[in-house]
Amino acid sequence: MLTACDTDFLAKLSGLLPPDALAAPEPRYLEEPRGRLTGQGGAVALPRNVEEVSVILRACHAAHVPVIPYGGGTGLVGGQVGLGNALPLILSLERMQAIRQVYPTENVLVAEAGAILADVQRAAEMAGRLFPLSLASEGSARIGGLLACNAGGVNVLRYGNARDLTLGLEVVLADGRIWHGLKRLRKDNTGYDLRHLMIGSEGTLGVITAASLRLSPRPAVQGAALMVVDGPKAALSLLALAQARLGDGISAFELISGTGLAFLAETMTQVRQPFAVPPDWMVLIDLGLPAGADASDALERVFADALEQGLVRDGVIAANLAQRKAFWSLRESIPEANRHIGAIASHDISLPLSEIAPFIAKAGQALARIKACRINCFGHLGDGNLHYNVFPATGHSRAAYDGERAQITTCVHDLVHQMGGSVSAEHGIGRIKAADLVTYGDPVKLAMMRAIKTALDPHGILNPGAVLMHDEMQGE
Amino acid sequence: MLTACDTDFLAKLSGLLPPDALAAPEPRYLEEPRGRLTGQGGAVALPRNVEEVSVILRACHAAHVPVIPYGGGTGLVGGQVGLGNALPLILSLERMQAIRQVYPTENVLVAEAGAILADVQRAAEMAGRLFPLSLASEGSARIGGLLACNAGGVNVLRYGNARDLTLGLEVVLADGRIWHGLKRLRKDNTGYDLRHLMIGSEGTLGVITAASLRLSPRPAVQGAALMVVDGPKAALSLLALAQARLGDGISAFELISGTGLAFLAETMTQVRQPFAVPPDWMVLIDLGLPAGADASDALERVFADALEQGLVRDGVIAANLAQRKAFWSLRESIPEANRHIGAIASHDISLPLSEIAPFIAKAGQALARIKACRINCFGHLGDGNLHYNVFPATGHSRAAYDGERAQITTCVHDLVHQMGGSVSAEHGIGRIKAADLVTYGDPVKLAMMRAIKTALDPHGILNPGAVLMHDEMQGE
Repeated sequence: MLTACDTDFLAKLSGLLPPDALAAPEPRYLEEPRGRLTGQGGAVALPRNVEEVSVILRACHAAHVPVIPYGGGTGLVGGQVGLGNALPLILSLERMQAIRQVYPTENVLVAEAGAILADVQRAAEMAGRLFPLSLASEGSARIGGLLACNAGGVNVLRYGNARDLTLGLEVVLADGRIWHGLKRLRKDNTGYDLRHLMIGSEGTLGVITAASLRLSPRPAVQGAALMVVDGPKAALSLLALAQARLGDGISAFELISGTGLAFLAETMTQVRQPFAVPPDWMVLIDLGLPAGADASDALERVFADALEQGLVRDGVIAANLAQRKAFWSLRESIPEANRHIGAIASHDISLPLSEIAPFIAKAGQALARIKACRINCFGHLGDGNLHYNVFPATGHSRAAYDGERAQITTCVHDLVHQMGGSVSAEHGIGRIKAADLVTYGDPVKLAMMRAIKTALDPHGILNPGAVLMHDEMQGE
Repeated sequence: MLTACDTDFLAKLSGLLPPDALAAPEPRYLEEPRGRLTGQGGAVALPRNVEEVSVILRACHAAHVPVIPYGGGTGLVGGQVGLGNALPLILSLERMQAIRQVYPTENVLVAEAGAILADVQRAAEMAGRLFPLSLASEGSARIGGLLACNAGGVNVLRYGNARDLTLGLEVVLADGRIWHGLKRLRKDNTGYDLRHLMIGSEGTLGVITAASLRLSPRPAVQGAALMVVDGPKAALSLLALAQARLGDGISAFELISGTGLAFLAETMTQVRQPFAVPPDWMVLIDLGLPAGADASDALERVFADALEQGLVRDGVIAANLAQRKAFWSLRESIPEANRHIGAIASHDISLPLSEIAPFIAKAGQALARIKACRINCFGHLGDGNLHYNVFPATGHSRAAYDGERAQITTCVHDLVHQMGGSVSAEHGIGRIKAADLVTYGDPVKLAMMRAIKTALDPHGILNPGAVLMHDEMQGE
C-alpha cells in the first residue's frame, strides 16, 4: 500500500533538504504533451545533486510515498503523470543540468539527467564531436528522461537508440542507495548489464541522475536525397541497394507518404513541395560519408542503379547543405501537419523489415472495413519503425470517429502483433500503453519484469502504474 | 541448499526425456582451455529442442539440482566448470545447432544456441551478409555461450560486442518457463530490456536456447595497414585522426607490441615480420569502406597526415587482400606465441581511452618494483581493451614467479580500477574472477545483481558460483 505525499510527509522531507528544494507543482508538471492525461502531485522536489535525490528517495521509500521521476515532460505515453490513488511526489531533475565533462579524445561526454538534449548536442559540437540522438522534442527533452525511455529518433539506423549511446549511468535506487556506474568504457564484462535494465524502464526501477554518453566523429561529408518510390516494398529494396553500396554511410532512411504531403499542402503552405505532382510514396535518404567522398555522386549512383532496377521513378539530390536542411524540414513538419488535421489515433509501431509492405497493405484494408479514413504512414523505415496515424476521411471531424477509435487501435495493434512487430517502437509504455503490454507482451517476460520490479523497488514507489499496471503490482 | 545430481535424480529425469538425452560426461566437459580448473558433473544432458531444455530445468528447479549451461567450452574464466559442493548436471546445447532462418532483406539470422560461430558466419556469407562477431575460438565457440558471455573480439570498434549484434532471444528460465523473445526488430520499447540482462549473465539467470542476430552488409571495399608508432599515446592520436577522416570505416585498430613481435620471432619463425627492425609499438588498422572508395589511397592519406603530425614512423599498406590476411595472421598469432613463452599472469582489461598511455607507463613501473618481467601488452586498442600479459624475464621460468603471481595480478587490477577501468573487458567473470567482482565492483550494483539473481533463480541452481560467489548467495 502506498501513502499520500501529504503535508506531514512534506514537512518531514523539507527538514532534510535545502530551503528551496520543494515547491508546489506548477500545472506543467501535471500535463502531458497531447493533453490526454492530467496528473497529480503533492509537491515537486527539485534536487541539485545526487545526494539530495538519495535523501528524497530514502524518505519516500521509508514512508511508502509514490514518486514520479520527471525529465522534460515530453513523453507521449503518460509516463510522466501520476494517476494512482496515493498522491505522489514529483521528482524533477531539471536543476541537475550540468555537462560534467567532455572527453573529446575518448568520444565521451558525461551529462547530468536534467541536461537538455540540444545542450548536449551543442557541447559535443563545441568539442568537434557528434551526439547523434536527435528527435522532435530535443529543445526540451532531458537526458534522464530520454534514457529512461530509450528514445529513438531520426539517427537510429546509423547510431542506434539512446541505449546504444550510453556507456555508463549514475542511478539512485528506490531506497536511496546510489549506484556509481558512470564508466567510460567500450567493453566491460563485469557482471550483469544493469545499465540496459535501467534504460527503458521508464523510471520504475531507479532514477537516472547522470550518464556517460558515447560521442561520434562528425561525418566528414554529408548529403541527402528525396526519391520517389512505388511503395514501401520498393523503398526497402532501395535501402538494401543503398546499404550494399554505402553501408553505414546511410545515416537515415525516412518514409514519407502522399497523405503526409497532402496534409502539408493543406495546412503548412510555407513548406516547399519537392515534386510538382506529390507522389504516393517517397523516401528521404541521408548520408554521412568519410572524407574525400562525394555525397552527390554516391546518391546519383544509387539512384541510377535503382532506376535500372525499377525501384525509383524520380528524385532530387540536395545540391548543398541548405537544401539538405530543407529536405529534413519537410520531413520534420509532418507531425505538425498531422496535428493541424487532427488524428483519430496514432500508432508508434515496428515490424520486421520484410513484413512492412504486407502490413501496410493489410492494415489499410482492415481499417477500411471499419470506416473510411485517411492514413498517414511515415517515419523511420530503415529501422522498421512506422508512425501509423489514422485521420478522419476528408470533410469529417475527429468526433465522428469517437465510436471507432478503440476499434481502430486494436485493429492496428492486433495486426502488428500477429506479424511479429511491436506496439511501441520508440515511445515506450508509460500509462497509455500499459494495458497493451498485458495484451501483447510475452507472459513469461512480464512475470520476469514483475519479479525484478519487486526485487529492486519492493514498496512499488517508483512511477507506480507506469509500464506495469497497478493491479499487476497488487499483492507484491 | 543445492542437491547433488545423483543416480536417483538422473533416473527420474531420464524418464522425462528421449533415451539418448543423458550421458556420462566426457572429460572435455570438465576442462577449461587453460587447464586452470577441473569441473565435475553427474551427467551431461543433451537436449534437441527448447521443450527438452524446459523439461530439464523444471526438474532441476524442483529438485534443487545445480545446472552448468555448456556451450563450446571455450570461455577463459571458468564459467563452464562446476565446482560447488553439490554435483551439477551439465546442460550442453550442442545438439541445438540449427540456423533456423536467414532473412537477408532484414539483415537478420536466427540461430540456435548450439550453432558454432564459424557456421553462423558462413551462413551469413552465403546470404551475402556479414555476421561480424569474430574471435580466436570461432571454430568451436557456440552462439549461446558467446551471448551468455557477451563476447568481444576484433570487430567491436565497428560493430559492437555480442550484445550489440542481438535483436532477440529465446530463453529458458531456472524453473523451466520459456521466454519467447525472438523478435527481429530494431526498435522495441515494450518493457524492460531483459535481452541485455540475459546477455552477459553467463548462464546464471537463464539458458539462452536461440537468438535472432543482426547481420550487416559486407563492406564493399576492404584494406589494412601496419603502422609504426612511438607508443600507445601516438597510436590513439592516430586513431582519432583516422576516425576523423574515415569514421566507422575503421573497423579494427589493434595494438601490437615489440615484445609480441619478439615472441613471434622466437617461437613462430614462420610468421613473416613486416619490418626489418621490429618496432616497439605498431598498430594494425583495418578498413571497410563504401563502394567506389580506394582503401590504399585512404590509408596513404591517413599515413601522410600522421607522418606530418609526428604520429607514425613507418608503415606498410596491404597491396591486396592476401596481404591484408597476412597482417591479420600476424596479429592473431600473438596469443599462440604467448602460450609458447608461457605467461605468469594474463589480464583482460579495459580503460578509458585517455588513461591507456598513463596506465601502460605506470603498470610497467609498478611491476618492475615487484620483479623483473616481460610485458606483452596488445589487443583491441580502439575499444580501450588491452590484453596485458606478464611473462618471466628472459632466461627465467614461470615457476620462478609462483610467489609473485598473485601480487602481479593485484597490482595490475588495482591500477586499472584506480584509473576507472574494468578488470574484465571481454572475458567475463566466471569463477576465476568472481572474487575480483567483490573487490572491484560497485557494492550497490552487486546488491542489485544478487536481488535479481534471487528473483529469477530463487533456488540458485543456474551456474552456481559463477559471477556471484557461493558465499554471496548464502542465506538467500
